[in-house]
Amino acid sequence: MSILEHLAPVSEVSHRTGPHDKIVLSSRVRLARNLPRLPFPGHAKRGDRMKAYEELMPVVQGLGPLQGGMAEPMERLSNLDKQLLVERHIVSREHAAKGTGSGFVLNREESLCVMVNEEDHLRMQSLRPGLQLAAAWAAIDALDTELQAEVDVAFSPRYGFLTACPTNLGTGIRVSAMLHLPGLVLAEQVGQIIQAVGKLGLAVRGLYGEGTEALGNLFQVSNQMTLGESEPEIVEKLSKVILQILEHEENARKSLLGKKPRTLFNHVGRAYGILANSHTISSKETLNLLSLMWLGVDIGLLPPETRALVNELFLVTQPAHLQCLFSNKEKLGAEERDVLRSDVLRDRLARLERPDHRRLGPLGTEGPGSD
Amino acid sequence: MSILEHLAPVSEVSHRTGPHDKIVLSSRVRLARNLPRLPFPGHAKRGDRMKAYEELMPVVQGLGPLQGGMAEPMERLSNLDKQLLVERHIVSREHAAKGTGSGFVLNREESLCVMVNEEDHLRMQSLRPGLQLAAAWAAIDALDTELQAEVDVAFSPRYGFLTACPTNLGTGIRVSAMLHLPGLVLAEQVGQIIQAVGKLGLAVRGLYGEGTEALGNLFQVSNQMTLGESEPEIVEKLSKVILQILEHEENARKSLLGKKPRTLFNHVGRAYGILANSHTISSKETLNLLSLMWLGVDIGLLPPETRALVNELFLVTQPAHLQCLFSNKEKLGAEERDVLRSDVLRDRLARLERPDHRRLGPLGTEGPGSD
Repeated sequence: MSILEHLAPVSEVSHRTGPHDKIVLSSRVRLARNLPRLPFPGHAKRGDRMKAYEELMPVVQGLGPLQGGMAEPMERLSNLDKQLLVERHIVSREHAAKGTGSGFVLNREESLCVMVNEEDHLRMQSLRPGLQLAAAWAAIDALDTELQAEVDVAFSPRYGFLTACPTNLGTGIRVSAMLHLPGLVLAEQVGQIIQAVGKLGLAVRGLYGEGTEALGNLFQVSNQMTLGESEPEIVEKLSKVILQILEHEENARKSLLGKKPRTLFNHVGRAYGILANSHTISSKETLNLLSLMWLGVDIGLLPPETRALVNELFLVTQPAHLQCLFSNKEKLGAEERDVLRSDVLRDRLARLERPDHRRLGPLGTEGPGSD
Repeated sequence: MSILEHLAPVSEVSHRTGPHDKIVLSSRVRLARNLPRLPFPGHAKRGDRMKAYEELMPVVQGLGPLQGGMAEPMERLSNLDKQLLVERHIVSREHAAKGTGSGFVLNREESLCVMVNEEDHLRMQSLRPGLQLAAAWAAIDALDTELQAEVDVAFSPRYGFLTACPTNLGTGIRVSAMLHLPGLVLAEQVGQIIQAVGKLGLAVRGLYGEGTEALGNLFQVSNQMTLGESEPEIVEKLSKVILQILEHEENARKSLLGKKPRTLFNHVGRAYGILANSHTISSKETLNLLSLMWLGVDIGLLPPETRALVNELFLVTQPAHLQCLFSNKEKLGAEERDVLRSDVLRDRLARLERPDHRRLGPLGTEGPGSD
């Protein structure tokens, strides 16, 4: 039995909505906390790791918002389960690599998750659909307050919260949002935006965080600095920057739609055509093409109800979801997954109306062509 | 009014069939002949060119098989008309560039065409669907015999027929066939075949003859030598070699279908998906993708009646046909054609059943994959 059966059904996850969710897929705030006196997990010997684990797991499970949720030691999870949790953005890739002495606690709504013995003794995160950084912050702040009423955490009056990595020192906060920026990518403006965001002391990363590629035109924007600014200041600054990026993305889309509608329709149409007719397809290509289908929904080329279908395909075509949902085999090879993925996509998209530019009125031509 | 109205309708051309026409699209034999005493067209002054033209046009029009056909001075044709004739393989690209003093005569069945003042005073060709080199040779040989009963042609007892270019000296014959070799291309064996064919003294070229790219997996195979072998020997040698290539192509397809059906279906499915959903597409990409749809018909992934549709699309998506058939504008830019081409393709393919691998029974997986 897979952990998938204990998580919210894919159909429910695909229908989650939030403010500005056409462009801001999700908002996340996480706090890093550690026990005083015990070494950080990366340096701890087994005894100390277990001590931290055994002290923290019951406390975390007892926190109000987490009661009745899921609590799992990592050692009890198969590799597939771990990968599923990563694909849901419930645990980090780093945490998925952990075994004995590490675990996580997830609330019933799947909006709060605490990882025990990740890089720090505690990594507590709050995840919400759309642009909801302030709400995410409020939820994790409340959890942190409850936590600190139960256990002492490592804190220096001079440096603030102590963390395994100095980049988290101080507030221990990382505020981030996942942005879908196909307009800026197609308009070749995304490089400029990344540069500008970098100058504001923020980081831009790919889909699975640090060191990952920006697949599917998805970009994670987050704070770099954790020292010298208060949490609400960081949250507010990031929210403002995200609203600005959102405006740039909307403008890029409007401009493309006004000046180069054919180019835009061409991208969306071909993406649909390939997804609905391939017989083997990698998860990377799938992400990139599904991104263009989202764009197709946003600009009205595909009916609005298609969004939930694309959300669902986005989730279920990832390797672990694909394996769990559509295969009886214990372990599929990459090649078998590519084939299965194409079968699922063809099947689901066969029922869909094709993208139709006539929804948007008559069309001219634009840009340079070739014969 | 365009010359298209005087040619066989596209729907008729698309339904022409011949032996082995899954792989051998057409067979062609042409003879080069010249008047004695007059300089070759490339060297002739206007007076001499006109003299040859005025002597030859009435004679050619009077030849039995050409009576009641079309006779056109090149100067009377618009650039668009000339391009249409090239797309139909009725006149050569070189001849299409000619004006005053050049012309052509075409029989009613469009199987015989004589160009006057191309590179030689006369270029006479016979074109048939499928593998019919012997029949094509017989038809042009008969026409040549009739011609030589009417006019003297330049002939040397030592060298044979004299021609403008020494590569045509002797028989003045070029025998060629247009082959569709997607199997050998996908199996990466086409290079070997081209090499082997070259060693036999034959040439392999692209869709529009000498110096053109092999678009759409189409290869023209022809003799290089015109001296030292009789015409029937050349025709027979080429027919044999083509039957061998045909066998290699069939084996390549069988092998792919046996070992990598998914890969094959993937190519065909994606080709259909893109053609049926793009909003701008070049003629090169169109050729390459239509080639894969032909393959889809051949292997049973698409219903057999699709072949004529693909033939038709192959013809009407070429620039001049596209312009004449689907636009009221005098002259479309390349960009406008790319857009119009995609409109035509989307429209025509919307009615088509999708490629369906279930026609061919259950499927496994094969080859290396990626995530």
